[in-house]
Amino acid sequence: MNILVLNSGSSSLKYQLIDLENEEALAKGLAERIGVRTAEGSCLMHEAKGKKPYNVSADMPNHDVAMDVVFQALTDPEAGAIRDICEISAVGHRVVHGGEGFSQPTLITNETLAEIDKCSELAPLHNPPNLAGIRACRRVMPDVPQVAVFDTAFFTPIPKRAYIYALPYNLYKEYGVRRYGFHGTSHRYVTARARKLLAQTGMDVSEIKIVSCHLGNGCSASAVVGGKPIDTSLGMTPAEGLVMGTRGGDMDPAIIPFLMRRLDMTPDDIDNLINKKSGLLGVSGTSSDMRDIEAKAEAGDERAALAFDIFCYRARKYVGAYAAAMGGIDVIVFTGGIGQNSPAVRNGICEGLGFLGAEIDPRKNDGFRGEGSISKDNARVRIMVIPTDEEKMIARETAEVVSDLMASARR
Amino acid sequence: MNILVLNSGSSSLKYQLIDLENEEALAKGLAERIGVRTAEGSCLMHEAKGKKPYNVSADMPNHDVAMDVVFQALTDPEAGAIRDICEISAVGHRVVHGGEGFSQPTLITNETLAEIDKCSELAPLHNPPNLAGIRACRRVMPDVPQVAVFDTAFFTPIPKRAYIYALPYNLYKEYGVRRYGFHGTSHRYVTARARKLLAQTGMDVSEIKIVSCHLGNGCSASAVVGGKPIDTSLGMTPAEGLVMGTRGGDMDPAIIPFLMRRLDMTPDDIDNLINKKSGLLGVSGTSSDMRDIEAKAEAGDERAALAFDIFCYRARKYVGAYAAAMGGIDVIVFTGGIGQNSPAVRNGICEGLGFLGAEIDPRKNDGFRGEGSISKDNARVRIMVIPTDEEKMIARETAEVVSDLMASARR
Repeated sequence: MNILVLNSGSSSLKYQLIDLENEEALAKGLAERIGVRTAEGSCLMHEAKGKKPYNVSADMPNHDVAMDVVFQALTDPEAGAIRDICEISAVGHRVVHGGEGFSQPTLITNETLAEIDKCSELAPLHNPPNLAGIRACRRVMPDVPQVAVFDTAFFTPIPKRAYIYALPYNLYKEYGVRRYGFHGTSHRYVTARARKLLAQTGMDVSEIKIVSCHLGNGCSASAVVGGKPIDTSLGMTPAEGLVMGTRGGDMDPAIIPFLMRRLDMTPDDIDNLINKKSGLLGVSGTSSDMRDIEAKAEAGDERAALAFDIFCYRARKYVGAYAAAMGGIDVIVFTGGIGQNSPAVRNGICEGLGFLGAEIDPRKNDGFRGEGSISKDNARVRIMVIPTDEEKMIARETAEVVSDLMASARR
Repeated sequence: MNILVLNSGSSSLKYQLIDLENEEALAKGLAERIGVRTAEGSCLMHEAKGKKPYNVSADMPNHDVAMDVVFQALTDPEAGAIRDICEISAVGHRVVHGGEGFSQPTLITNETLAEIDKCSELAPLHNPPNLAGIRACRRVMPDVPQVAVFDTAFFTPIPKRAYIYALPYNLYKEYGVRRYGFHGTSHRYVTARARKLLAQTGMDVSEIKIVSCHLGNGCSASAVVGGKPIDTSLGMTPAEGLVMGTRGGDMDPAIIPFLMRRLDMTPDDIDNLINKKSGLLGVSGTSSDMRDIEAKAEAGDERAALAFDIFCYRARKYVGAYAAAMGGIDVIVFTGGIGQNSPAVRNGICEGLGFLGAEIDPRKNDGFRGEGSISKDNARVRIMVIPTDEEKMIARETAEVVSDLMASARR
């Protein structure tokens, strides 16, 4: 069973074709600058397993055309992975915001499409391009089941005390102002993986308390007890919580009206400021990329060093806060581009957490690759690095929805 | 040596006359509805030690007139505490915002007055009335030293990683956007008091790690190591951090531009929303007073129960976050109207903190009055209730400034 996994952004289309048998990617690629009129033009980078990379420049004025270019690549006799589109059994779409309505991966129908569209107000930059990708696929493969896998769905079980803001309650009831959380597919994947690995060592994982730190371009922390999330740091939007590449995370909310008055800013200016100009970029003034920040800090750049310091300190406070929220902590998981690749960040975050029983073994942490534990052998809290694989998770969840569908069709 | 301590709000003037010999209040009082034209009119409630309470209705169109009424009461032959104004050796003024410039209690001169005025932009509701109180006192007692004691000053030592927001750095350099913290006098007083009490039991308090929770109308938590604060929850303004009576504390900052667009709100509307209509009041919909919230929750009001739950949960996460920030925790201090008087809140906050070694003894907690420990005898973390006394602290600090002044005058 081959599942096509799609992550459709405003000007990009990322995909993987996954063979569910062995959960292997048969092909992956990225269409960029869709609908963007630049001198460069739009292009597709594609690579199928065992084949040469295949890069084409093609005019892609919209997601429909981009989808056609992707299908051509997937079925190309030289560079493709399949002979015909009919070898794709289902499509799994990453959808950022599922609001309160979607707590599970969901088969896409006209009704669910309309429901997803309603969530666009809460994610105006994300849901519309997700929908464009879905529509493009339905056009090309009208008979193939399409499944929406929501970035918010994993967090449906978190209790009210964690998702209700201390704002007038009608803002929740009437306008949906609450914490939803994002990166759900990643937190679900790495916490499930951590539990599996630990269960294999004979550990009882039924009530195991995990803080998972997804540190990539966006960053978030989640508190997960026995597989069930009880809190997470991203909020109504992906602007809350940890420091990120260009997002500032937590701040005094009164800073916003202060800046609007002082600098004559509009609500759109504020969204732009807190989402695009803050975080590592805002503090350092030079880069949103943690690799640059670490290099500059090492070379003596004070602002880069401060950005690094704030990034780790704020994450460390979340680890402590979530330990308190869960009434203890057994595991810390690092994932995402930074979490998987930066020993310095992992070290910076865990510094001083010895009192919780969390101690990194520097010999394991430095240069760690792959999946496993980096804590000291006798430490009470297991500190793990687990590479995330959202595409694999989306493929799995898509397949589950489809097989449930087929099972109920047979009844 | 008698010190007059003044806390001057926009329409009120709170005062205590303190005899420094035994740190006893000779008189205290409150002038209300200054400059407010209501049917009730303005009034003064005054009580001197050993005298009958003295309440007068008097027209107080501004702080100058109010100050005259206060001095009349203080020197009244029947209800007063002193015969003449010259028995007041110094005046200590509570000033909310000292910006980055004021790290210590400071003698008021024309220059310092101008500096305090500059901080008004950061605390437009607080600093101007503080200044009105100072000016009124200088007029009546031009030769008596006046000292400003800042609510922010205690937090001057907190490190950059705790006070710099992950926003563009120029917002800090050019507009002073950073964490300042408030309730500093209270956190200083209760943490000093806790250290003193514990030192008396023979404990080494030189590096003792305290989370102090000031829970009153406003609420804040501070992390204090060996007497030195390293972090605090109130931010650039008193809107950040914990849930408060009418303030919402932490929230996704992107909620603000969302609401402004959706509900056509102005920056002033937002300030009003997050400062006056949120917190316990916003969630419960009925009261900003924790006593009401507890009573209603007990009577089955779900929204009041939710407000209580969020209040405690958010404070508990701060305890955990600050333990992580300090690399451990030895003491939790509760103070303020709620912290001193609500066993249910103290219990709600400490619930599940057993893994840190923090366990409340219900027999000590229930109905606790006064000052002391409410943790289990063998618990590693000491949980204490310490009634705050900001006036006493301001009197002490004022006296220190004045005696330094006199000492240098003698040289």
